[in-house]
Amino acid sequence: MADTTIKKRGEIKKIGVLTSGGDAPGMNAAVRAVTRAALAKNLQVVGIMHGYQGMINGDIKDFEWGDVSGILHQGGTILKTARSSEFRTEEGRKKAYKNLVKHNVDALVVIGGDGTFMGASIFSKEFDIPVVGIPGTIDNDMYGTDYTIGYDTAQNTVIDAVDKIKDTASSHGRIFFVEVMGREAGLLALSSGIACGAEAIIIPEADSGKADLENFLARGYMSKKTSGVVLVAEGDKAGGALKLAERVTKDHPDLDVRVSILGHMQRGGTPTAFDRIAASQMGVASVEALLDDQKSVMIGLVNNKITHVPFNKTVKENRPINNDLLEIQKVLNLW
Amino acid sequence: MADTTIKKRGEIKKIGVLTSGGDAPGMNAAVRAVTRAALAKNLQVVGIMHGYQGMINGDIKDFEWGDVSGILHQGGTILKTARSSEFRTEEGRKKAYKNLVKHNVDALVVIGGDGTFMGASIFSKEFDIPVVGIPGTIDNDMYGTDYTIGYDTAQNTVIDAVDKIKDTASSHGRIFFVEVMGREAGLLALSSGIACGAEAIIIPEADSGKADLENFLARGYMSKKTSGVVLVAEGDKAGGALKLAERVTKDHPDLDVRVSILGHMQRGGTPTAFDRIAASQMGVASVEALLDDQKSVMIGLVNNKITHVPFNKTVKENRPINNDLLEIQKVLNLW
Amino acid sequence: MADTTIKKRGEIKKIGVLTSGGDAPGMNAAVRAVTRAALAKNLQVVGIMHGYQGMINGDIKDFEWGDVSGILHQGGTILKTARSSEFRTEEGRKKAYKNLVKHNVDALVVIGGDGTFMGASIFSKEFDIPVVGIPGTIDNDMYGTDYTIGYDTAQNTVIDAVDKIKDTASSHGRIFFVEVMGREAGLLALSSGIACGAEAIIIPEADSGKADLENFLARGYMSKKTSGVVLVAEGDKAGGALKLAERVTKDHPDLDVRVSILGHMQRGGTPTAFDRIAASQMGVASVEALLDDQKSVMIGLVNNKITHVPFNKTVKENRPINNDLLEIQKVLNLW
Amino acid sequence: MADTTIKKRGEIKKIGVLTSGGDAPGMNAAVRAVTRAALAKNLQVVGIMHGYQGMINGDIKDFEWGDVSGILHQGGTILKTARSSEFRTEEGRKKAYKNLVKHNVDALVVIGGDGTFMGASIFSKEFDIPVVGIPGTIDNDMYGTDYTIGYDTAQNTVIDAVDKIKDTASSHGRIFFVEVMGREAGLLALSSGIACGAEAIIIPEADSGKADLENFLARGYMSKKTSGVVLVAEGDKAGGALKLAERVTKDHPDLDVRVSILGHMQRGGTPTAFDRIAASQMGVASVEALLDDQKSVMIGLVNNKITHVPFNKTVKENRPINNDLLEIQKVLNLW
Repeated sequence: MADTTIKKRGEIKKIGVLTSGGDAPGMNAAVRAVTRAALAKNLQVVGIMHGYQGMINGDIKDFEWGDVSGILHQGGTILKTARSSEFRTEEGRKKAYKNLVKHNVDALVVIGGDGTFMGASIFSKEFDIPVVGIPGTIDNDMYGTDYTIGYDTAQNTVIDAVDKIKDTASSHGRIFFVEVMGREAGLLALSSGIACGAEAIIIPEADSGKADLENFLARGYMSKKTSGVVLVAEGDKAGGALKLAERVTKDHPDLDVRVSILGHMQRGGTPTAFDRIAASQMGVASVEALLDDQKSVMIGLVNNKITHVPFNKTVKENRPINNDLLEIQKVLNLW
Repeated sequence: MADTTIKKRGEIKKIGVLTSGGDAPGMNAAVRAVTRAALAKNLQVVGIMHGYQGMINGDIKDFEWGDVSGILHQGGTILKTARSSEFRTEEGRKKAYKNLVKHNVDALVVIGGDGTFMGASIFSKEFDIPVVGIPGTIDNDMYGTDYTIGYDTAQNTVIDAVDKIKDTASSHGRIFFVEVMGREAGLLALSSGIACGAEAIIIPEADSGKADLENFLARGYMSKKTSGVVLVAEGDKAGGALKLAERVTKDHPDLDVRVSILGHMQRGGTPTAFDRIAASQMGVASVEALLDDQKSVMIGLVNNKITHVPFNKTVKENRPINNDLLEIQKVLNLW
Repeated sequence: MADTTIKKRGEIKKIGVLTSGGDAPGMNAAVRAVTRAALAKNLQVVGIMHGYQGMINGDIKDFEWGDVSGILHQGGTILKTARSSEFRTEEGRKKAYKNLVKHNVDALVVIGGDGTFMGASIFSKEFDIPVVGIPGTIDNDMYGTDYTIGYDTAQNTVIDAVDKIKDTASSHGRIFFVEVMGREAGLLALSSGIACGAEAIIIPEADSGKADLENFLARGYMSKKTSGVVLVAEGDKAGGALKLAERVTKDHPDLDVRVSILGHMQRGGTPTAFDRIAASQMGVASVEALLDDQKSVMIGLVNNKITHVPFNKTVKENRPINNDLLEIQKVLNLW
Repeated sequence: MADTTIKKRGEIKKIGVLTSGGDAPGMNAAVRAVTRAALAKNLQVVGIMHGYQGMINGDIKDFEWGDVSGILHQGGTILKTARSSEFRTEEGRKKAYKNLVKHNVDALVVIGGDGTFMGASIFSKEFDIPVVGIPGTIDNDMYGTDYTIGYDTAQNTVIDAVDKIKDTASSHGRIFFVEVMGREAGLLALSSGIACGAEAIIIPEADSGKADLENFLARGYMSKKTSGVVLVAEGDKAGGALKLAERVTKDHPDLDVRVSILGHMQRGGTPTAFDRIAASQMGVASVEALLDDQKSVMIGLVNNKITHVPFNKTVKENRPINNDLLEIQKVLNLW
């Protein structure tokens, strides 16, 4: 019986791979690496479409070497992704499990964020099926890994856009508030802000940004420098770039203030070298972890080495912000 | 007396160059071409900072060959740009003229849009000083020229962003309304929409876009295709991407609808080959036009040939939309 | 009998599309446009793989709307391309024709360069089958059209590379000879050279480049400017960048001279907006031409309007070089 | 006496910054960070032009905040760079020291590779002047740091070029040998090869690449896959891409083999986010190190933390190649 096959660990014969949650550049590189690493170990592979919802619907395809050709450099995910409310119900998960049994799938690799891993954690316990996770999100906010797949590409997309905006800011003597993705985490705003020389960076994790902004505005008057860029994480308590810009305009009516919300383009695009390599490393490591009898762990990269982080930890803890970067911002952009 | 020098045409010895209105990629290439073409003709050159306002304030610098080195590939404008309400007053223009006399400037090249040329037209008449214009605006909405400097770069910036957004749209099965610059003109939205395969293009010049959109939504249901991108010109009467998205969401609550407003990044960035070449051609032609005793004309490119268009015409007429492109959109993206 | 169907023009029911010769960015956009324009006119479509060789081998696939989805922004050609010596023989062409009859193909659209059209011209006459061509080559050297598909992308690829090389040239005080594609035509070198501010441009069509180079070297000594970039078309009689660099090094042993041969990356990459739009226009126009009973014509774009150019003309004549651009080069880069 | 001032460490009042050796993207970001971090600590700063040669020639400029504005995103180095044979002589170094004394320079930050640090090490000992180094080279081959400035940009430049070449390789069924910089180190070839899915990677540090290549060629025949990309480090003992391609063509005359030597464009271009951030961190850390009484150390980044590595170590040891990446290459690209 297929059921038994699944329960005996160490005898994995067929793995399924899916992407779930928000898409991130490099997910395809990870799907490719999982598939080829598994095939290289003489495992069979299926691609599960549309995340957990596709597992419920039985949207499952056999994957061969060539099915993941030509995708290494593509943004998005060929497996598609979705959020599934049905998978949050026991009944939904039962349907999903039946489909795995039907396709003789012994183990899963899931690529996504903390929501993805929370679902995987429950599912793995309920049906005793090993699941390994790969962190794929542009927010880089997962505990237990220095990098998540997509983050490096996103920060390069942001600085490319901000470099363009600075052309205009500087030509016109304008102050731009540029809103960057990150509902709960400001790391993308912080690192992009350093990389593009933002005059202030407003993130939920630190209050210093507002002081930097006031400082910049105050000194700007004295030195007649009225052009600048302020990076704002969308999750900031102050209410995002639009609110901030409104307030500054009210206090400084003579300034020429503009807002740019970078939006969803931050999630797409050809992945950078870093993201492709990290995705390849993590994809290979996820298959090795399954064969090493691991379950309910996320593959991480800490100090350029592969680590295994229990799903429970990735769910419960957040990454602290890098205070050194905050300091560098102050030194390099305020005067 | 300096005054006299200016009035005798055909004896131009020193020209001034300025950029005015919204900045556009390639303006620096034009500034470089004007400067070097003038120097090659043994004229002297001054750069006038901050557009007409700098002319009023006397913010004027001698320009040599090296002052325009290393700027060909830079976005923005090293001369800065501004809108000047003072230049709309006779008094403001008098001050500006006095500064030209003071610096012995005999003629002007102004780089900008129709507002720039309207000001130039009045100024030229009032003080009998020859002015030639170069069309620099990403909107490509000037009568008398096939292209304006910055347009080609802007359309490539837009398709680069939309390609990224399509990664996400396709991975999630979402419909994105992407708002593109163009307050009065939809050409940027139209050409970018063709270039990125938008499912519908909503522009002020044509009503067909809304029908295309309805068509796409209706057929999408039948064929289960629910991912797509709709390009919206910011000047559309329907009220922009946000309003459109709201309405569609109301009518089709099961669709996953998102909005992205590309914003000011469309004005910046390294200019494309096309914009650099066009700016170089127009810059050289503007100096030749002054030496050929022309005044109050805009340099245009029609059928790849330099033309001279009276300022009055550029001000009063608009470019019609290209109906062939509208047709192509329908053929290639609706089914 | 299928044979008869083919001979009656005006009754085209199924067209075949292929790409041949060197690949060029935007070919996929053209394949998409041909396919969808044909489907929109209720024609059937087949994709013929590997150019004429695939026609001989019967490597032919039915194409539906979805078969050309997601390719608009991709470099290369999903139809693959090849040079076929077999198609130069009568026997080869007979085999090819039999395969068309077998698949009920009434007409062809071929995307490629002059070699492609020469083959098409012969084939069309021999078997009385209408063939329309679309110019796809980065060289932009076809008579009867202002632009060929791929040229705009190639010139942007070149200036992007040269901008990078200039960083190094300027940091080190080096002179780079950069070789650009173009065996018989120097247009790519010329326009890229204008766009990146090359100190000299060496192309087969004009001798002035060598004088510019000598001029630059001579003046460079006087002014202590020893950094620069010289663009060389690969087809130049002087023997390419390596030979030129050798000679300059011999004559000026104190200069730090380097060579960079840009090579095949010039043929690939995501097509620019211009190339995608031109390919879409030409693709639609090629289907309309077939339905308008045209044969043995290449679709061209002259002054932004679609034209029809007899294959014989495209084969026999070359495009003259743009002397205005040569002049501009001199004005802007020599002093 | 100026001399005395220099010898008392801990009382640094004015630092000099220079770039030396091959240029690398991000050097400007480092120059900016050194300058602003020093100014923020109330130190004075001079920029030394053209590396050690400019120190000998007295080509030294006072640097203020604004002198490093607008350079964060620029490739190359505004300080220029050069190799100086004169600095290898005692007499040359004496001249250099006198110029430092003349300008009251107490300490140096030098940005470059191991040759740069070797010179710095000798100079610092001879004249008892503290020197701190920042690793700037695209080769990433310095002992004691995970990353050198410019490496991340270079690997992205390489994969961008190879992605383009793959369009052509795949469209034509060709095998490309792409030569990547790295005279003594194959890391750039290795990581870029992983990132672009190269079929084989030939580097001086490992022999496995040639076996991979043979494997690929052998299997290619069986599976009719004859398109592929082989990355070759320029320093490989086999003699570079040209030699390899010749040999393969001889052994497999039916293959369509091409060569592309990426060349100097790998050294230029806008730095990536990673390189800008690393350069900013290292720049700030270099000034802190001087104030912490450090000398003859290179600033490194190990596990995302700043480290101090004695110059002697950077000179004498090389970084081992990452075997995990070699393994991943095999798993993902051979079958």
